Amino acid sequence: MQPISTNTLLEALHWRYATKKFDATRKIPEGQWMAIEQSMVLSPSSFGLQPWRFVVVQNREILEKLPAISWGQTQPVECSHYVVFAYRRDMTVGDVDRFVARIAEVRAVSLESLEGYRNFMLGSHKLALESGTLNEWCARQVYLAIGETMTAAALLGIDTCPMEGIERAKYDSLLGLEAEGYSSVCSVAFGYRSEEDKHAALPKVRFSRADVVQYV
Amino acid sequence: MQPISTNTLLEALHWRYATKKFDATRKIPEGQWMAIEQSMVLSPSSFGLQPWRFVVVQNREILEKLPAISWGQTQPVECSHYVVFAYRRDMTVGDVDRFVARIAEVRAVSLESLEGYRNFMLGSHKLALESGTLNEWCARQVYLAIGETMTAAALLGIDTCPMEGIERAKYDSLLGLEAEGYSSVCSVAFGYRSEEDKHAALPKVRFSRADVVQYV
Repeated sequence: MQPISTNTLLEALHWRYATKKFDATRKIPEGQWMAIEQSMVLSPSSFGLQPWRFVVVQNREILEKLPAISWGQTQPVECSHYVVFAYRRDMTVGDVDRFVARIAEVRAVSLESLEGYRNFMLGSHKLALESGTLNEWCARQVYLAIGETMTAAALLGIDTCPMEGIERAKYDSLLGLEAEGYSSVCSVAFGYRSEEDKHAALPKVRFSRADVVQYV
Repeated sequence: MQPISTNTLLEALHWRYATKKFDATRKIPEGQWMAIEQSMVLSPSSFGLQPWRFVVVQNREILEKLPAISWGQTQPVECSHYVVFAYRRDMTVGDVDRFVARIAEVRAVSLESLEGYRNFMLGSHKLALESGTLNEWCARQVYLAIGETMTAAALLGIDTCPMEGIERAKYDSLLGLEAEGYSSVCSVAFGYRSEEDKHAALPKVRFSRADVVQYV
C-alpha cells in the first residue's frame, strides 16, 4: 500500500466539520459513494462480529418525514446520501454462528477448526448478556464504524454531519429496523457543504493536546 | 484540501488488520506519531464536548505490567506506542462550562453569546444524567475517536490493534485514571506488523455489502 503524507491527512481532518447546511444540488458520484459504503463494510469491530446495519435512505417520502423526528434538522433532505447507523439488538448465539460460518466460507476452513474462536466469542457474549451490557457493546462498535467512515469521507473530500439528535424509536419504526432486530444510534449525512453554511468558516474548537493527551 | 483517490483509501482499509504481533524493533517516527495524536485531538464528538483522554503509556515498568491485565496479550510491550482510550466519568456541568470557555477563547466571542448553545448542551446532559446513560454516551464518543484514529493510522501505513480485552478497573487504577475521573474503554497498540504475524496474510472476513448495507 502507498501511505499518504501526514499533511494530506491533517489537512483533511482540519477541513472536516459537522456540516449544517448541504448543497442540495450536488450528488456524490457513484464510484465515490461505493468507496464510502466499503469503508463502512471494512470497519473494525470487536472480534470482527460486525453487529450492525447501515441504512441508506433514498426514498423521498421517507426522507421528508425525517426532519420532524430529527430535532428539526434539515440535513436529511438536503444532503446527498443519508445513512442511519444501527446496531444489532440483543445479539444471539445465532448471530455469532453466522459470523463463524462466514469466516469458514471466506477463509475456506472447517467449522471445527473455528470451535476455539467460537467459544471465545461466546464467552464474551455471555458475560455481556449477563451484565446487561450486550446492547451497549454493540452500539459502541457502530461508533467505531462512524468514526472510520467520517474520516474516510473527509479524505475523499466529502462532507459529513453526524446526527445524534434523532428520535431513535421513531426512526426504528419508520425504517423497519425494529421489526428486523436493529436499533438506530446515530445517523450521518454525506454530501457537499453549501456555500451559505457559515459554520464552515468557524475555527475548529479543540482542547489543547496537553489537555487530552497524557503521557504516563 | 487535496482529496485522496478511492483506490488509495480502499487499499489502506484492506491493508489494515488487527495486528497480533508487532515488530518490537520498529518505532513510529516522531512526525508520524504527532499526526496520530492530532487525529485523536481532532476527532468529532457529540456537541464537540471531547469527553475523553488519550493515555500514551511509555513507562517501561508500567507497560510490562499490562499483558497480565490484558488477557495475556503482548502488544503493550511489543508495539511502538500503546494508547489507552478513556472517557470522562460522570461528566459535570463544570465540564460543559470548560468547553464553553474554550469555544469563547478559540473563536474570540463572549460567553454570553454562547449561552444558548450552553443551555442546549446542558439539556442533553441533564437528560443523559437522569436516564442513566451519561457515561455510555461519553464512552460512545471515545469509540468515534478510536475509529478515526485507526483509519488515520492505516492511511499513514501504521499498523494498529484495538484491544477491548483489558481489565479496565485495573488499568484505571494503575494509570491513575480513576483518581482523575476517567475510565478506560479500550486500548489501541500502534506500530508495525512483525513478519512473523501470520494473521496479516489471512483474508479479511466481512459480511457481504448486501448483508449490512440496506437501501430504504
